[in-house]
Amino acid sequence: MTGGFFKECDLAMMNTVTLNEENVNSFHHAISSVIVTAQCFGLLPVLGVTGPNAASLRFQWNSFRAVFSIFILLGAGLNMCFAVVLMQSGISFEQSDGVVFFGTVTTTYMLFLQLAKQWPNLMVEWENLELSQKHYGYPRRLHLKIKIIATAVLTGALVEHALSKSSRITVAAAHTDNITDMFHHYFTKTGTYNQMFAVMDYSFTTATLTLITNFIATFAWNFTDLFIILVSLALTERFHLFNQYLVSLRGKFLPESFWAQRREEYNNLSHLTRTLDSCISKIVLVSFGSNLYFICRQLLNSLSPLDGVINTLYFCWSFGFVLFRTVTLSLYAASIYDESLLPKRVLYDVPPESYRGEVSRFLSQIVTDTVALSGMNFFHITRTLLLTLAGTIVTYEIVLVQLNSITIIGSNTTNNMTRKFYE
Amino acid sequence: MTGGFFKECDLAMMNTVTLNEENVNSFHHAISSVIVTAQCFGLLPVLGVTGPNAASLRFQWNSFRAVFSIFILLGAGLNMCFAVVLMQSGISFEQSDGVVFFGTVTTTYMLFLQLAKQWPNLMVEWENLELSQKHYGYPRRLHLKIKIIATAVLTGALVEHALSKSSRITVAAAHTDNITDMFHHYFTKTGTYNQMFAVMDYSFTTATLTLITNFIATFAWNFTDLFIILVSLALTERFHLFNQYLVSLRGKFLPESFWAQRREEYNNLSHLTRTLDSCISKIVLVSFGSNLYFICRQLLNSLSPLDGVINTLYFCWSFGFVLFRTVTLSLYAASIYDESLLPKRVLYDVPPESYRGEVSRFLSQIVTDTVALSGMNFFHITRTLLLTLAGTIVTYEIVLVQLNSITIIGSNTTNNMTRKFYE
Amino acid sequence: MTGGFFKECDLAMMNTVTLNEENVNSFHHAISSVIVTAQCFGLLPVLGVTGPNAASLRFQWNSFRAVFSIFILLGAGLNMCFAVVLMQSGISFEQSDGVVFFGTVTTTYMLFLQLAKQWPNLMVEWENLELSQKHYGYPRRLHLKIKIIATAVLTGALVEHALSKSSRITVAAAHTDNITDMFHHYFTKTGTYNQMFAVMDYSFTTATLTLITNFIATFAWNFTDLFIILVSLALTERFHLFNQYLVSLRGKFLPESFWAQRREEYNNLSHLTRTLDSCISKIVLVSFGSNLYFICRQLLNSLSPLDGVINTLYFCWSFGFVLFRTVTLSLYAASIYDESLLPKRVLYDVPPESYRGEVSRFLSQIVTDTVALSGMNFFHITRTLLLTLAGTIVTYEIVLVQLNSITIIGSNTTNNMTRKFYE
Amino acid sequence: MTGGFFKECDLAMMNTVTLNEENVNSFHHAISSVIVTAQCFGLLPVLGVTGPNAASLRFQWNSFRAVFSIFILLGAGLNMCFAVVLMQSGISFEQSDGVVFFGTVTTTYMLFLQLAKQWPNLMVEWENLELSQKHYGYPRRLHLKIKIIATAVLTGALVEHALSKSSRITVAAAHTDNITDMFHHYFTKTGTYNQMFAVMDYSFTTATLTLITNFIATFAWNFTDLFIILVSLALTERFHLFNQYLVSLRGKFLPESFWAQRREEYNNLSHLTRTLDSCISKIVLVSFGSNLYFICRQLLNSLSPLDGVINTLYFCWSFGFVLFRTVTLSLYAASIYDESLLPKRVLYDVPPESYRGEVSRFLSQIVTDTVALSGMNFFHITRTLLLTLAGTIVTYEIVLVQLNSITIIGSNTTNNMTRKFYE
Repeated sequence: MTGGFFKECDLAMMNTVTLNEENVNSFHHAISSVIVTAQCFGLLPVLGVTGPNAASLRFQWNSFRAVFSIFILLGAGLNMCFAVVLMQSGISFEQSDGVVFFGTVTTTYMLFLQLAKQWPNLMVEWENLELSQKHYGYPRRLHLKIKIIATAVLTGALVEHALSKSSRITVAAAHTDNITDMFHHYFTKTGTYNQMFAVMDYSFTTATLTLITNFIATFAWNFTDLFIILVSLALTERFHLFNQYLVSLRGKFLPESFWAQRREEYNNLSHLTRTLDSCISKIVLVSFGSNLYFICRQLLNSLSPLDGVINTLYFCWSFGFVLFRTVTLSLYAASIYDESLLPKRVLYDVPPESYRGEVSRFLSQIVTDTVALSGMNFFHITRTLLLTLAGTIVTYEIVLVQLNSITIIGSNTTNNMTRKFYE
Repeated sequence: MTGGFFKECDLAMMNTVTLNEENVNSFHHAISSVIVTAQCFGLLPVLGVTGPNAASLRFQWNSFRAVFSIFILLGAGLNMCFAVVLMQSGISFEQSDGVVFFGTVTTTYMLFLQLAKQWPNLMVEWENLELSQKHYGYPRRLHLKIKIIATAVLTGALVEHALSKSSRITVAAAHTDNITDMFHHYFTKTGTYNQMFAVMDYSFTTATLTLITNFIATFAWNFTDLFIILVSLALTERFHLFNQYLVSLRGKFLPESFWAQRREEYNNLSHLTRTLDSCISKIVLVSFGSNLYFICRQLLNSLSPLDGVINTLYFCWSFGFVLFRTVTLSLYAASIYDESLLPKRVLYDVPPESYRGEVSRFLSQIVTDTVALSGMNFFHITRTLLLTLAGTIVTYEIVLVQLNSITIIGSNTTNNMTRKFYE
Repeated sequence: MTGGFFKECDLAMMNTVTLNEENVNSFHHAISSVIVTAQCFGLLPVLGVTGPNAASLRFQWNSFRAVFSIFILLGAGLNMCFAVVLMQSGISFEQSDGVVFFGTVTTTYMLFLQLAKQWPNLMVEWENLELSQKHYGYPRRLHLKIKIIATAVLTGALVEHALSKSSRITVAAAHTDNITDMFHHYFTKTGTYNQMFAVMDYSFTTATLTLITNFIATFAWNFTDLFIILVSLALTERFHLFNQYLVSLRGKFLPESFWAQRREEYNNLSHLTRTLDSCISKIVLVSFGSNLYFICRQLLNSLSPLDGVINTLYFCWSFGFVLFRTVTLSLYAASIYDESLLPKRVLYDVPPESYRGEVSRFLSQIVTDTVALSGMNFFHITRTLLLTLAGTIVTYEIVLVQLNSITIIGSNTTNNMTRKFYE
Repeated sequence: MTGGFFKECDLAMMNTVTLNEENVNSFHHAISSVIVTAQCFGLLPVLGVTGPNAASLRFQWNSFRAVFSIFILLGAGLNMCFAVVLMQSGISFEQSDGVVFFGTVTTTYMLFLQLAKQWPNLMVEWENLELSQKHYGYPRRLHLKIKIIATAVLTGALVEHALSKSSRITVAAAHTDNITDMFHHYFTKTGTYNQMFAVMDYSFTTATLTLITNFIATFAWNFTDLFIILVSLALTERFHLFNQYLVSLRGKFLPESFWAQRREEYNNLSHLTRTLDSCISKIVLVSFGSNLYFICRQLLNSLSPLDGVINTLYFCWSFGFVLFRTVTLSLYAASIYDESLLPKRVLYDVPPESYRGEVSRFLSQIVTDTVALSGMNFFHITRTLLLTLAGTIVTYEIVLVQLNSITIIGSNTTNNMTRKFYE
């Protein structure tokens, strides 16, 4: 009878097992192309990303990638210093934008450098889990999903970057006659770069360098969110495979040893989540912090009138995109937590005669453990967090709006009256 | 002795069992008339609503009801587009009202269309539960309760709609001489419809069509809340029947198999709640969001002076009604959660010699599972939520009041001074 | 050996058992004098309060006390109506004070009337618990503690009432010559009573009646808080007796039947808490709501300059007293919850060989059940609530301060300028 | 086989056991030098701090240290009275600063006096725990860590104090010619001391006394935070030793008696935490409250323009230091809670055949008990608290900023206009 049971199990597994050749969907392979792209911008400088398995990964301080990463880190740090120096002359939102942006990027590079050291071990643990749970197969089309999401996010970022440049070049073009002047004006007067050229001389070389640094920084900023999304997706898919199998056995009579095995597999998944969290929780904190800041900023911008089609387009896209990224990030990361709770429901359906110590232990583990990504343990990413975030944004926004309107009214009142007098 | 026990049980059950003919109180029958009403306005276009049982329900894309529903959905969407277009010229509360209102209605129609597809399966699960727990009978007078609540809410909505029309027609009448002019003025100048006639020519046909669309939209907006209230009521009643039976056996010695059965019944109820939640949680989110918005709006309106009796009456009724609907909705939906926790107390009273594995398992299920409706899992509807909501409204309100008063003072200051000058 | 154990238990109990004659500390006797005082003001109109035991309590609609209570209820309702009518002419904090005050008092009378009907049953359950847990004795000096707290709170209220009258009579005296005029001015111009005499003619009779009504209303307002404090105190003491006994057996080896008994006693205490909560949770909600309102109001008052010693004294006392009452109330009510959690710690110290099913069940009951007073289940009164309350008050206060300062600045700006012009 | 197991255990313990002579790292010895420093300023006046073990500690009211402590307590109280008297003339942030500062210091002295009475018992319990868990050894380099942290915090405080004096003496020097005048001006006009010399005559003696009192008060204010940090550190290290040992046995088969022993040790640690919490929870509350106040104040200061290098330096250091202290304090105190949860993860890894009653009991104790420092049970110090605190500060800050800007704009508007008129 036990034999018959195991046959049934095997059959059930057969259906979900995907072929061994499909390990293109193992996380190590599925994520590799994205990491290669990131390495072009100096992020996550590990060696052996395209190797046959996780064992080929290693980190070396004296590798070209690591040196390149440190080089860009220093560049971003320099930009931040420029921004800080410029802010000295007075605090305003426009000027703190630069500090926050380059501060975020600098921190991001430092954290990804730190992550690069831990990445090989993390990927080995992940691969071991994939192998030990081989009977569930690999997530279907993980490879494809990762590619689609990465393309979507990076394209969105590219469009935003292009619109940002266009809108400012338009402004520069309106103030100047020929192209050289336009570029000169663009770099020294409008927006993002003037902090550099306030302290540096303008030349073609410095201008080009600045452009490149800025492009890389924008990439890094967007890649942080993308990276958390992809990692969350891959982990959720592993939980999903596990849950699918459990649901297929819902309400059946199964021996205690079966549940002991399942619990151990669940425990391994929860271990992996914890290891992953310890590696990326700082990146998560930085990502949430900067997104919160820029959403508030963009909302505040939405109150001042916009002139020009490109400007309006840029604003809408930029705001929509940061919102889309934050919500997507939150939902994907929260889905780990959601999936980690699902086995609970299958355990409630276990028939009384099959409910033994290990089932009860499994249930108590699910209930008492919090399996989720976190921001340095300050918060766990769940769906409730997204609601709290929304509430916080609305509150801050309303208050910022007021602050803004008071200043405007205050100065208007004074101005109006002054003007009236001298008429 | 066990025989004696079961006799006692049977007797206890007899008392609560209602006759088979009383399945007029089965949820499928009790809700049917309300759904028929909703279908007159294009909501929930399922076939077989008045059929003998849930098996007769089905959804077809090519049925008249579905086509009618899609038709109205498009109409509401069109109105939303008009409102969005008009809002372009400047953001203000008055103009975002239209967008929010028609946006809500459009989304509602989309969600009810989606629900219609899931409705047959949901009702079959519900009916199966009713049959498997037939020994508890059907909720007493569910049919009647549903009718009373539906009548009360819809009448209230009708009164609000009538007052809204009257208050604006009064305004129109004050500006015009004859009736034709009055209607013309009413449609093109005052309030809700001007966004349509700003882009469309005024004619008798378009005016009538607009009136009807508006009437349907108002119905849909009110029906959303009504629907959640009724569904919550029906589910609460099922939990109530179950709890009543448990309470009647409080403190008695009962075999483990008895508790295993009760736990299974509880598990089925919790399954049904989860299925229901997965079907309507989006509708719940939309309903809470729009109610939160309109309560804040009405509170803000309460600060500007009201002129005319009809206007004052309209405002008071409108505000009181949206408040009443939100509170009722929250309390009914929260009562599912409250009832789902009650068996806990009976389990604490189980005598020691009767406290076995399944009792402990039952208790741990009640404690570890959250059986409640939710807004897309962002929040669970409990009594605490209502308090949080109240706190949020008060905070937002205070801030909005300030924003308002600042603007008024600011403009007053400037105006006053300007006026004084030219005197 | 078991016999030896029970002897030890008996001895341990002997020490804590107080003599039968000491049932002066039973809750029914200890609270009686306070209830008699309350009945002089028409609150809690039950008969048999001074009877030998709880069985002598009963409620009758046609008793003098009930009729008296309804009479005062109507008087308070009338006052509220006057206040509402007067508020029609414009909403301001000063005028909403009257509505909130008399609204609270009217609601309080209604709720105490309702409580009077439930009081006999509640007290019988309480007495039964006291008898079934007679081996723990009665709380030491409960009688005395209740008297001290009642005296302190009521004296404080009397001082506040007297200061309130003095401060206003001083104002009236400053505007008038003789005593008759002073009283006339006092009643028709200053503060609390003008809403009555705006619609009613002034005469000696109506003035005296008003004074009495006002005195009674103030008593009722203060008594609500006092009542919750005393009831919480008495319940906490019962939990305390239970915990003291448990702590005295900390770490000892005890049979499972011993723990089963203790769990049952704990269960009875938690039952009593729930019954009590179902009786007074509405009163708790009203009390917290009105205290929150008046604390915000007084804090706001603290910003406008105070003139005169009596006025300053009145303000300080009034504000300090409402703060003291709210904090005391919260802490006493929260102590029920704190005490209900204490047995947990004794259970952690149970030696392994004595840790059986009933001990584990006892622990799980303590952890999964929330034994506390609540405000209609919207919130449970715990220490955390007090912190939340403080945070809420600070937030609202800061915002109200702003609203206030803006209005003042706004009007000042306009006034100043206008004045300057005409100089 | 069991013998073999115990050998293994002993070996594992050997590795972590530190030599008996290393009891320099016992808490009693490690903290002694810090306490001696504190006693120079009258804090924690216990005798026998440098004794060989905790048994030599005792508190005497008639000891010199206690009398000295009371003497300083009275001095601080006097200062607070001066500050209160001065505040009478009008409430503003500048003047409430003095009240809050000296109020905090006075309360701190009272609480440390109270703590001194409980300190001997607390240290004996701590030492007993250290002895009963001797097989884990003493925390490595606890002695050194405590010294480093104490030096860092106290040096930081000294720098702040020096900068504060310098910045004000600079102001005084700018207004006066010779040194005597400068000091006179410094004491009677600028900042902290003017409240004293407003009621007292200026003389060299009073001035010196004031300087000393102020120095002591500043020390006490900083020492509060330092003390909580050190105590948290020492307790965390004990949990850490325990967890390290558990982790080293992760996944091994171990008898139930082993887990029973571990659970008892964990229970002792949790007992110690609770005793410690009952001793210092009031100090924690005062510390958090005053830090919250001064962070808000400093942030508000950051908005007014700073003149002079020393002033700017003082402001930056002062603000950075209070922020650093609060964050460090929160993180160290929260680490107790974090460490107390870690054994949970080892228990999840216990193999099924070794999972018996005591393991499950251990797990349930970890999950159901909250082992953390608290602020009088109003809040537990966890990482989440730090986030809540940050959110609260940001909210209050934004609102305070507004209040500030409104007042400035309001007065500017009026001033500007007035000025314009008379020109």
